[in-house]
Amino acid sequence: MTQIEAAKKNIITKEMHSIAKYEGISAEFIRKGIANGTIVILRNHFRLPTSDFRLVGIGRNLRIKVNANIGTSPMNVNISYERQKVLTAIKYGADAVMDLSTGGNISKIREMVIKNSTVPVGTVPLYGLICELSRRKKRFADATAEQMFGEIEKQLSDGIDFVTIHCGITLKALKILKKKKRLVGIVSRGGSFLAEWMLHNKKENPLYENFDKLINIVKKYDAVISLGDGLRPGCIADNTDDAQIEELKTLGELQKHALKNGVQTMIEGPGHIPINNIEKNVVLEKKYCHNAPFYVLGPLTTDIAPGYDHITSAIGGALAGYYGADFLCYVTPAEHLTLPDLEDVKNGVIASRIAAHSAEIARGYKNSLQRDYGLSKARKNFNWKKQKALSINPSEFEKRLSAKSKDVCSMCGEFCAMKRKI
Amino acid sequence: MTQIEAAKKNIITKEMHSIAKYEGISAEFIRKGIANGTIVILRNHFRLPTSDFRLVGIGRNLRIKVNANIGTSPMNVNISYERQKVLTAIKYGADAVMDLSTGGNISKIREMVIKNSTVPVGTVPLYGLICELSRRKKRFADATAEQMFGEIEKQLSDGIDFVTIHCGITLKALKILKKKKRLVGIVSRGGSFLAEWMLHNKKENPLYENFDKLINIVKKYDAVISLGDGLRPGCIADNTDDAQIEELKTLGELQKHALKNGVQTMIEGPGHIPINNIEKNVVLEKKYCHNAPFYVLGPLTTDIAPGYDHITSAIGGALAGYYGADFLCYVTPAEHLTLPDLEDVKNGVIASRIAAHSAEIARGYKNSLQRDYGLSKARKNFNWKKQKALSINPSEFEKRLSAKSKDVCSMCGEFCAMKRKI
Repeated sequence: MTQIEAAKKNIITKEMHSIAKYEGISAEFIRKGIANGTIVILRNHFRLPTSDFRLVGIGRNLRIKVNANIGTSPMNVNISYERQKVLTAIKYGADAVMDLSTGGNISKIREMVIKNSTVPVGTVPLYGLICELSRRKKRFADATAEQMFGEIEKQLSDGIDFVTIHCGITLKALKILKKKKRLVGIVSRGGSFLAEWMLHNKKENPLYENFDKLINIVKKYDAVISLGDGLRPGCIADNTDDAQIEELKTLGELQKHALKNGVQTMIEGPGHIPINNIEKNVVLEKKYCHNAPFYVLGPLTTDIAPGYDHITSAIGGALAGYYGADFLCYVTPAEHLTLPDLEDVKNGVIASRIAAHSAEIARGYKNSLQRDYGLSKARKNFNWKKQKALSINPSEFEKRLSAKSKDVCSMCGEFCAMKRKI
Repeated sequence: MTQIEAAKKNIITKEMHSIAKYEGISAEFIRKGIANGTIVILRNHFRLPTSDFRLVGIGRNLRIKVNANIGTSPMNVNISYERQKVLTAIKYGADAVMDLSTGGNISKIREMVIKNSTVPVGTVPLYGLICELSRRKKRFADATAEQMFGEIEKQLSDGIDFVTIHCGITLKALKILKKKKRLVGIVSRGGSFLAEWMLHNKKENPLYENFDKLINIVKKYDAVISLGDGLRPGCIADNTDDAQIEELKTLGELQKHALKNGVQTMIEGPGHIPINNIEKNVVLEKKYCHNAPFYVLGPLTTDIAPGYDHITSAIGGALAGYYGADFLCYVTPAEHLTLPDLEDVKNGVIASRIAAHSAEIARGYKNSLQRDYGLSKARKNFNWKKQKALSINPSEFEKRLSAKSKDVCSMCGEFCAMKRKI
């Protein structure tokens, strides 16, 4: 019985209880959310239960979660360094990690990530197939549907908790994409390979056409399908265009079908979106996808800040979270330029956590507000220890305070406004 | 004749022409904006005209500007380092700098800043008096109104382009502040000293009571009064409270009076504001202050990120800018902890510029949209040189690209989605 099947039978599973406890929300609320598809639990049923694994729920009224992408590229393979990235991401507050490796021994890296992560692990299974074929000097366009489903099942059987599958790229969507020409086209790796496959084979997307097959595979593991946005806009000029919305509508239909069949899904979203269109994007997702959890990449509010896209996506993520996005995929300062290093992973997670927390504050979440209240009270009382403990990165706080003398910070010194005590 | 007096007589000054040219807006629009107080030009009439000084306009429909605060503290005095901060701030895109020095020879530092800055320079003149008295072992509470006005005039005669004066802290506002107790009270340095003065002397704020005197002084130099928000909220818990709004209403009355008398003003704003209250804060400022330019510090969307407040304020600044704020005061990663170093100044300016640009994109500013379009087009075409040139910090772009091989970035390598060309 999957979580959804249990929820529909009014059964509150131990997983639901665990999520309820972490969130400070009633288990019945969690059960209802899982039954109606507004909440998902990221966990492969066959994942070995370890004492330090944290069950993570995503969705309505829950704390806004942060995902960190790690993984190799063909030009950069170092498994022990990737391990450090996993640990760094979790240390600074990631609620999930996705292993997007495309270089080296991908199965081995995936195994390492699952073993080392205390939070749920996701992948884009097609990457594994793309790399395998590439190693054999073959093109993904020549892959069979069977190979695709085989790779998905293989990764789930390894223990992956959620899988991004680009089921929404249909022939119809590609037709729309071709008609209303984009500035930068498709920027999703998985999406671009699938589109190439479809155009080469003149066939419908097999992951869309055989969605029931996908459901049956994922159901065995009670994992979560993250319905990928292969047509997300990769620049401000392409935002919220017809192709993007067409795909979103398709994802909504698939979400409904999966829910009916007892499989949990969440919906992936953009991308590059200007501030004025972020609310619209969240509203449309909730509308077309029946309030399913919304998992956004950024969004980035401008294209011009490579080197600083943790900031552009913190702006967009905070706003999306306020309007109802449930899960923020971090973007690191390295985005668009190179693979992130450990410092980038750290800064990416912290920026996303700031965005998530700012959104929770704006939503009026009590626990989040209490943390701000506590820190500010400590600030008023010149209690540096407490401020440090409540700050988003205590070690950064400590480092910068080294210049501090006695009881005031070196910014104002004796002229500190708070010293006036008014 | 001041800019406002000229504007009211339908005269378009050479300064208005210059602003119009920079903004790509008609000079008549600028003239009207100055006449009705929705636009100000930051420039002391007696500033020596140098070839590289950039006239800066702030207000309705103009590009959103960024201010960088620099300056010493009693615990940290190094004039040549402050000079580097000025140059760094301007290099990375500051449209104005404020010298907030409170340590060392303040007159000498101010002179240095005016000499080295190619953008307008502002100060909080009271700091000069506070420090002078402190050196003589005297308290600001014992200062005379005459001393306050004397210091303001002295700094304007030195060539300062805009001055922050906390005229809005009235006895009535302090009564409200006392009644509805705040978590952190007054966090404005100038504001806290003035409040202390008022409570000690049991007298009204002399800068409010003798506002006409202030107007007459500033008018001589045709400088801009930045009506300070001494009661800005210093934490999320205190945001948009009665004391803050009372001060804002007072600032609106003063703004109207100054405009009538030919003196340009802008209104300073918070501070710490959650995302859900940022629109309200901008709307109230525009309403109570007759659409005068709004100059915001941040706003910071959470209290818990010391060490990362350039990010919290980029989130708030982008949103405030979208809703109509005109001028963003940067916040550096050092805020709440220590004086910023050069790296902090750089990162603070860049974060604010990202916020300002994101807001311009959302407002639909053509020039800003074109820059994003150009960068994304270059990205699609793997034109790294053009991407670098259009990016917010080309040297950071260059540094990170060092890992790049040939024509793809090391993030995806051969699997780059854009290589699929769909």
